[in-house]
Amino acid sequence: MERTSFADMPCPIARSLDQVGEGWSLLILRDALLGARRFQDFEERLAIPPNTLARRLKLLCQRGLLERRRYVERPPRDEYALTEKGRDLLPVLLSLAAWGNRWLAPEGASFVPIDRETGRRVDPVVVDKRTLRVLAAGNVALKAGPAAPASLRRALVRPAIFGGQS
Amino acid sequence: MERTSFADMPCPIARSLDQVGEGWSLLILRDALLGARRFQDFEERLAIPPNTLARRLKLLCQRGLLERRRYVERPPRDEYALTEKGRDLLPVLLSLAAWGNRWLAPEGASFVPIDRETGRRVDPVVVDKRTLRVLAAGNVALKAGPAAPASLRRALVRPAIFGGQS
Repeated sequence: MERTSFADMPCPIARSLDQVGEGWSLLILRDALLGARRFQDFEERLAIPPNTLARRLKLLCQRGLLERRRYVERPPRDEYALTEKGRDLLPVLLSLAAWGNRWLAPEGASFVPIDRETGRRVDPVVVDKRTLRVLAAGNVALKAGPAAPASLRRALVRPAIFGGQS
Repeated sequence: MERTSFADMPCPIARSLDQVGEGWSLLILRDALLGARRFQDFEERLAIPPNTLARRLKLLCQRGLLERRRYVERPPRDEYALTEKGRDLLPVLLSLAAWGNRWLAPEGASFVPIDRETGRRVDPVVVDKRTLRVLAAGNVALKAGPAAPASLRRALVRPAIFGGQS
């Protein structure tokens, strides 16, 4: 219920959470990225209650992250394919997984991402596309964008620094 | 309730969602990164019910993302400071915000991230730290890590490709 209002916030983080912030959603998308397509694929991999899965898949289709497609006519059988919008979440999942491996895997990583071609382990970091500078707390700030409402513009006359110094 | 089991999954994405997957949590951390420290700071910025806020702050402290500190003794007043673990979520938030700006801001972006020093807009992308290659669906795969249980090792004898071709 609280979740519904996130879509109306101007913040792109809030809007994203409105679409994919419910826990199972990102795990469903993770498995779709790893090749799951049919209802049973998701059900087996996730050990998710079928009702919850059906509801989540429907929402992810409505939001344009998955696309429902008929792959057999008789009997009718549908599968769920990722859209470009859904595929584009992989970098978010990789940065979240990297954080999880750093902070929540004291026994060592169970999964590691590798370069598909070389097979070498990759270490996902977030950089600026142009300068390749690593983006982290202390060197990034926030300013009002072209679509910012006037109140936001006033609040961000000076850019707000993502600092969080302790 | 469904959320509780995520912590026991070996996947670093599931574990991360267990800790920060509840919608408000990431918005609280976003605002902490933007300088909010006191209860009222968060309450004003987020328009969040105080009970929910109190519960979330407590959990984020228990999980080591925030640290509660007394800044005035009489009367006793506490503030919430980000830990290193909490600060380290900024890259995740930046990649999520970039996705939101690409897919959920048809009117244009309300907020844009900039380089703190140069003031130039930055475009957050996820790359491999060593090779600087952009990581996206199609060129990343997953293999079992050092702490993978035997069942996972068997399932990942061949690396699983993050593909999601439509």
